Amino acid sequence: MKNLRLAALNGNGRTVVPIDAVRIGEGFTVIAGPCSVENEKQTIETARAVKAAGAHALRGGAFKPRSSPYAFQGLGLKGLKILRKAKEETGLPIVTEVVDARDVFWVSEYADILQIGARNMQNFSLLLEVGKSHKPVLLKRGMNSTIEEWLNCAEYILNEGNPHVVLCERGIRTFETYTRNTLDLSAIPAIKELSHLPVIVDPSHAVGKVSLIPALSLAAVAAGADGLIVEVHIKPEEALCDKEQALTPDQFAAMMRKMCALHQFMGGLA
Amino acid sequence: MKNLRLAALNGNGRTVVPIDAVRIGEGFTVIAGPCSVENEKQTIETARAVKAAGAHALRGGAFKPRSSPYAFQGLGLKGLKILRKAKEETGLPIVTEVVDARDVFWVSEYADILQIGARNMQNFSLLLEVGKSHKPVLLKRGMNSTIEEWLNCAEYILNEGNPHVVLCERGIRTFETYTRNTLDLSAIPAIKELSHLPVIVDPSHAVGKVSLIPALSLAAVAAGADGLIVEVHIKPEEALCDKEQALTPDQFAAMMRKMCALHQFMGGLA
Amino acid sequence: MKNLRLAALNGNGRTVVPIDAVRIGEGFTVIAGPCSVENEKQTIETARAVKAAGAHALRGGAFKPRSSPYAFQGLGLKGLKILRKAKEETGLPIVTEVVDARDVFWVSEYADILQIGARNMQNFSLLLEVGKSHKPVLLKRGMNSTIEEWLNCAEYILNEGNPHVVLCERGIRTFETYTRNTLDLSAIPAIKELSHLPVIVDPSHAVGKVSLIPALSLAAVAAGADGLIVEVHIKPEEALCDKEQALTPDQFAAMMRKMCALHQFMGGLA
Amino acid sequence: MKNLRLAALNGNGRTVVPIDAVRIGEGFTVIAGPCSVENEKQTIETARAVKAAGAHALRGGAFKPRSSPYAFQGLGLKGLKILRKAKEETGLPIVTEVVDARDVFWVSEYADILQIGARNMQNFSLLLEVGKSHKPVLLKRGMNSTIEEWLNCAEYILNEGNPHVVLCERGIRTFETYTRNTLDLSAIPAIKELSHLPVIVDPSHAVGKVSLIPALSLAAVAAGADGLIVEVHIKPEEALCDKEQALTPDQFAAMMRKMCALHQFMGGLA
Repeated sequence: MKNLRLAALNGNGRTVVPIDAVRIGEGFTVIAGPCSVENEKQTIETARAVKAAGAHALRGGAFKPRSSPYAFQGLGLKGLKILRKAKEETGLPIVTEVVDARDVFWVSEYADILQIGARNMQNFSLLLEVGKSHKPVLLKRGMNSTIEEWLNCAEYILNEGNPHVVLCERGIRTFETYTRNTLDLSAIPAIKELSHLPVIVDPSHAVGKVSLIPALSLAAVAAGADGLIVEVHIKPEEALCDKEQALTPDQFAAMMRKMCALHQFMGGLA
Repeated sequence: MKNLRLAALNGNGRTVVPIDAVRIGEGFTVIAGPCSVENEKQTIETARAVKAAGAHALRGGAFKPRSSPYAFQGLGLKGLKILRKAKEETGLPIVTEVVDARDVFWVSEYADILQIGARNMQNFSLLLEVGKSHKPVLLKRGMNSTIEEWLNCAEYILNEGNPHVVLCERGIRTFETYTRNTLDLSAIPAIKELSHLPVIVDPSHAVGKVSLIPALSLAAVAAGADGLIVEVHIKPEEALCDKEQALTPDQFAAMMRKMCALHQFMGGLA
Repeated sequence: MKNLRLAALNGNGRTVVPIDAVRIGEGFTVIAGPCSVENEKQTIETARAVKAAGAHALRGGAFKPRSSPYAFQGLGLKGLKILRKAKEETGLPIVTEVVDARDVFWVSEYADILQIGARNMQNFSLLLEVGKSHKPVLLKRGMNSTIEEWLNCAEYILNEGNPHVVLCERGIRTFETYTRNTLDLSAIPAIKELSHLPVIVDPSHAVGKVSLIPALSLAAVAAGADGLIVEVHIKPEEALCDKEQALTPDQFAAMMRKMCALHQFMGGLA
Repeated sequence: MKNLRLAALNGNGRTVVPIDAVRIGEGFTVIAGPCSVENEKQTIETARAVKAAGAHALRGGAFKPRSSPYAFQGLGLKGLKILRKAKEETGLPIVTEVVDARDVFWVSEYADILQIGARNMQNFSLLLEVGKSHKPVLLKRGMNSTIEEWLNCAEYILNEGNPHVVLCERGIRTFETYTRNTLDLSAIPAIKELSHLPVIVDPSHAVGKVSLIPALSLAAVAAGADGLIVEVHIKPEEALCDKEQALTPDQFAAMMRKMCALHQFMGGLA
């Protein structure tokens, strides 16, 4: 693969993606927050809670690609403004999804990383547009995409001149129904041997069950992931989407402590 | 599902989608042509050949969503102009893919049906845009999408006021490697019982092997499909993409004769 | 592949498997009957009904491999005796499953074709044992098996000296949930180009929904299958297993008429 | 699920499976050795090497279920005798596969745990037979089996009165081709919440690539697995099967040190 513009590299020659003071690819970066921005109170309280627990960035969707046209589609611009306010309150950089090539320019005013969702992984127009922007990009793996196809999509972005791509494994579609999707942790060492890009894990969408998230988050750390993106909601039972996969702030804080200790331990192992 | 604006219905209360003089949902409609528009000669000769064999519409890609950014991406506007010329020569209406919401308006000047490709099935911005246009839409099933998700995507289009949606089964991704994808013919009777929309089959992308296409095309007719979209190239060995799945004009003509005879026979069976 | 002992071949050089007067691989062979033998009345009445509708052989399970150890496991020897009685009454040869290598010898006294079920496709001990028997074998494709693996399992049987293997496509496991499995009709022309063995289709287990079976059965005929194995029950709503996929005798008779007419028509097409 | 006979339970009320002095379900148990027993030298040298690195049991196949009848099928009884000798030399208990219900009795003379391979997970005759034996059973997950189906197969064994079942996740079949199968680590916490049985991981068959095995083995520890079964060969490049997935003794020893340290660390985390 070609990679025309230059990113900073860490000591192992791997790309580091800077978002404000956070540097994805150095240490273990945790991005947490609600599936979707529902209102100011929910978003800001969640932001404060995840910040207190040690999260490095806030996630929250303002544009929600939903299977049905009659499901909640997100607050749009209003949601982005709430995210900006949450950043002002907590200092956490913002990760939010962009779903339309026409929105990249103005959504970039609010986002610190532009997320490309799994359903849009092969939306090549959108990839080209974020490739031209100066924002880092979080590229989720399509739920039926091979590792090779996923890296080719990263290449679409790099090839436009944007070197700041973070890959995100979020589960693939299989016959198993106990979990929402099947988390493919093999993708972590595979990406490490095939690419120089950082790779993080989204256990929330992968398994879709709160009870399984802590064990898989620890497994992601041990497998060598560069970080995690996880759904946290102040009141999961009232969430407008994906309520069965959102951690409470307390569950998140407990998991955070273990992940940090484990990451530190793993550093000493290598 | 809701369906706000009205389409013409056939005698069984099912939607008929008119494209010039062709009416998808009445009889068996065959759309044929090259994977991509490569040049004027190749396109017009292929158009004449498929017209002579009885095809009802011409397919041809001007924008090719390719896994790799370094693969042939299509001729764009130049390709659309070649398709227009092919239509002038043969009278065949044009089916061509649109991959970007920003292109819907001007691509509609050249296309008689706007194709949404498998990778864009859940590109909701694009669905909304074609939903607002006045062109019929050919909506391919995503290669990892359930029938329910596919119908929900049709609903995105219908809900914007465009009643003219044709569904297209093109194979789903499975573990089998002998075929490119696995053609899911169960989707034909399933769509018939779940929806009023016409449904056609793309055996070329489903199996990816010329030798298997005739048998599966006949099977599609027998399963009750409303039509077929199939790749034909005047010189498959020189095709710029998907050469192993393009029929020669002679192969297409032979298959066409059998499909037409079979469709007529099936009409008498019911 | 090797094939040490010789089977009769049809005019196209393909294997014909004789079962009493029935010859699978010549014409279109229909095997019908209940999922499991429940009692004498149910079995014999069903046998008479499918015979009257034109079926060539009777299917019925005496040993049922069930996911749960607490589900109905079949009547065993008692079931086989009922099948024998049904054969005496109707003349229909018997297709029944054998699940244990130790049973092959004595089950062969009652069966005219030994069925190897999908879960046992790679039970190599069982394959070797039926390979040594003198009974024809119906080898179902494993629900997650590639065509290549399936043919290798046929090879295990042929290699022991039994040339009479009939392959049966019965659906593969995919992410789609509307159907029980995904019927892979591409396997029909694929087997025709890779092997000389006859291949039939089991639409009942593939889709698991009565409403979809007729369309897919006709598609199987058009795709070139050598026959069909289908579940019929005199009272599907009272069936001890798989009731949602059993046809009534009337539904079967209607489908049978169409399949026979279609098969005759296809013969004229080629 | 019922569980008629009693196994010892650990402090968390979970089943402990004793194999000689090894107790699976307490601590982290590592089973290592060659894919297949090829000869005495290879087996005994490998046994000594894995013993020196800290393995708790020796794996080695004497009966190899192979896709093709013409591939190496294992040494059979001769292989079992070599395994016995390896046990005499090293004291390591023996894990070996049984593929035929008729062999359970006499293979039990040589094995300390009877392995049921992925292809035989739903070979119910075999499950019933090992259920009647007094040997512990290692039940691999079928490569296309849901967690629920897998637990039902354990239930077949438990229900015959054998309480000593160890589950083994070994990868499921998906569309991804970079890895041999897709390791489903979500199964570890899932089994922990659905069952009281110990569960271990086989990274070798799951990924099929030496380079990915260490990272996934550490991930398995972090996810809470009770152990690992892994392929080690003194000269992987000369192995008769699966050479691309066998670790050298040195690679195994390095991985072993990390796994043990990590398991100890995880104990302090909880």
